[in-house]
Amino acid sequence: MSNEAEVRSVIERWARAVSKGDREGILKDHADDLSMFDFPSHLRGLKDYDRTWDFFFANPRGPITFRPTEMHVEAGDRVAFASCLMHCEGTSAGALDFRLTTGLRKIDGRWVIVHEHHSVPTVEERFIGPDASQKAAGSH
Amino acid sequence: MSNEAEVRSVIERWARAVSKGDREGILKDHADDLSMFDFPSHLRGLKDYDRTWDFFFANPRGPITFRPTEMHVEAGDRVAFASCLMHCEGTSAGALDFRLTTGLRKIDGRWVIVHEHHSVPTVEERFIGPDASQKAAGSH
Repeated sequence: MSNEAEVRSVIERWARAVSKGDREGILKDHADDLSMFDFPSHLRGLKDYDRTWDFFFANPRGPITFRPTEMHVEAGDRVAFASCLMHCEGTSAGALDFRLTTGLRKIDGRWVIVHEHHSVPTVEERFIGPDASQKAAGSH
Repeated sequence: MSNEAEVRSVIERWARAVSKGDREGILKDHADDLSMFDFPSHLRGLKDYDRTWDFFFANPRGPITFRPTEMHVEAGDRVAFASCLMHCEGTSAGALDFRLTTGLRKIDGRWVIVHEHHSVPTVEERFIGPDASQKAAGSH
């Protein structure tokens, strides 16, 4: 497999683990000291990363959907990143679309996620220009 | 300079260009087909990226501050990514802290930004767990 295909497969496998509520699978390809920009906060380390999933799985409304689309991967021999849009359903937050950028390093022959940036489009007016407001209005 | 130092310098130069309102400098190291996850929306291409800065610079409240901290760079020979926290002041949005992840490719010997993910911590309650609420309360 090419480096690009390997990275894509790491992200897809992680997303499937989330769908299944497989907490071990969610952590499997992450570095101990990873950094994460989560929706509300930023954190470092696998233990704090793991705890964010407590909240995610706390009050499910049904089966979890966690589906990447428009994935784009750039992979060199030892550094890679991937971006995608994610569709999520089934949690207490309701249906949502968010953006994900992941940074990876190849360590001992295997790709490991060292950085994960999740974000939801902001709803704060001070950050939304007239163009964005029009777009947002058009999309609903 | 090492690849890591070169990437760091690209991000710092870009941030300085924003501080100075140097629109040409802001675009200088970006790929024509870059993808951007902006605060409210996502977009592709240098033209749309450029237009997001119209809103940013539209109603300044004073000199612009645009300062990266805690920058972390992972750079291979042809792919790299960088993450940092950004402090921004002087725009119509008021003072704000946001998170930035940037993905780069080395093209013809020079690092070019092909992906940029900006986000502000969400204020929507449905995404904020009890821990995050405590942390947020503690930080104000």
